[in-house]
Amino acid sequence: MSARRIITVPVRKVEGASDTAADDLLAVEEPLEIRIRGRSVAITMRTPGNDEELAAGFLFTEGIVGEHTSITRIAMAGRNVVEVETGGEIDLEKLDRHSYISSSCGVCGKASIQSLEAAGAISPLRDRPKISRETIHRLPVALRERQSIFDRTGGLHAAALFDASGALLEVREDVGRHNAVDKLIGAALLGGEIPLHDRILMLSGRMSFELVQKSAMARIAVIAAVGAPSSLAVETALRFGITLAGFVRADRFNIYCGEWRIMAP
Amino acid sequence: MSARRIITVPVRKVEGASDTAADDLLAVEEPLEIRIRGRSVAITMRTPGNDEELAAGFLFTEGIVGEHTSITRIAMAGRNVVEVETGGEIDLEKLDRHSYISSSCGVCGKASIQSLEAAGAISPLRDRPKISRETIHRLPVALRERQSIFDRTGGLHAAALFDASGALLEVREDVGRHNAVDKLIGAALLGGEIPLHDRILMLSGRMSFELVQKSAMARIAVIAAVGAPSSLAVETALRFGITLAGFVRADRFNIYCGEWRIMAP
Repeated sequence: MSARRIITVPVRKVEGASDTAADDLLAVEEPLEIRIRGRSVAITMRTPGNDEELAAGFLFTEGIVGEHTSITRIAMAGRNVVEVETGGEIDLEKLDRHSYISSSCGVCGKASIQSLEAAGAISPLRDRPKISRETIHRLPVALRERQSIFDRTGGLHAAALFDASGALLEVREDVGRHNAVDKLIGAALLGGEIPLHDRILMLSGRMSFELVQKSAMARIAVIAAVGAPSSLAVETALRFGITLAGFVRADRFNIYCGEWRIMAP
Repeated sequence: MSARRIITVPVRKVEGASDTAADDLLAVEEPLEIRIRGRSVAITMRTPGNDEELAAGFLFTEGIVGEHTSITRIAMAGRNVVEVETGGEIDLEKLDRHSYISSSCGVCGKASIQSLEAAGAISPLRDRPKISRETIHRLPVALRERQSIFDRTGGLHAAALFDASGALLEVREDVGRHNAVDKLIGAALLGGEIPLHDRILMLSGRMSFELVQKSAMARIAVIAAVGAPSSLAVETALRFGITLAGFVRADRFNIYCGEWRIMAP
């Protein structure tokens, strides 16, 4: 990875009565512009690295590319610009509307739940996977063991894909939690692995509407998180048949919906 | 406050070998549409409550209303819509560009630092206030004591204004940390209290570029946070002469820039 994801800055560390010069590690935050055929579609603040995955995941989870419009080429065009070429029609009207209300940060809400459903692709998830309680309990430690940056800066969100038995498959980190999820789903899209029916999405923080929406697009049926869900995250998960577990720890968690996928001990 | 900011939902609490039905409190997340003279300007996911403040703070910190364009009327037009009337010209071109790249969630970056500076109003902050180390250490406890929702749901971000002696003046909470800051600054704007030269902004989480940008617009010279800053947050604070303290606890904190405002013990 050539992009710098961490930088070192001088700080004054105040601790009790002492006050010393020291170095501190910061998560890098820079804008990324996503262009389709030369046209600017979105600008998001992100941690550099996996930028093609971020662009692919963003375009897919927001419904701009998908079944009928595939990505034919995706490449950096400068440090903070990704250029995407697509095969098939892109609805420029939809793009305008989309950029306006979304910009990759969850600014859409109920209107967006409706547009998700209208998109047709999004029927409720009904079946797999079945997950043991022990598997859920083990996710946070497995995630932290693989997080490369988080422990050092304290400034990043992580998202990971696990299989149904709890084996960790991929981790992505970013200053924006939606970006971490977009990178994860983008990597799966570029690898031809969508739909992600038998996967668990694990999040280091809280669950918002937007993260559940992105999971629904990728057909991920189980989301687990260290933090709390919002009201709309639960409502959206219910609507799309997604299992939501929050406050996940080694000895406890809460199930907000889709309880039947979590096997009794 | 009539808007529901918390809802109760049924959950399964898994704890050790037990598995019981219980109620859990969730932070409410719903979309808010901000309209100027009937025209939709932005849609943001927010926790209901203080919506007029949120709209005012968003429009001000994003540079849409300010010195030459004042808010003449602001009122709810339905549950999730705020209508704003303004005196003076609004640059519709700027509004288009703005909605496109921002939508209240930090999607702008370096381009935005430049546009902040170009806006003229944003000269670097040079003077007050001077803050004692003891004052900084006391901020997190003071914030938590006044947070009304956070402790119960675990799902909200809080932002607070303190005076230079550490007295807490206002707190706002939201599922979006940028919204919490917009509500706080919006309340000050509607109360005729901007510029906020002698105030400290305290944040319950991490510091991103966007939060520093919003502080610069309101002329807040000191930001303290429980979490870490991003690289661009520090860069922006340096550029605008803002003092940034991170990882603030009762016994320690890090000073990233503007150290001269924090008095030696």
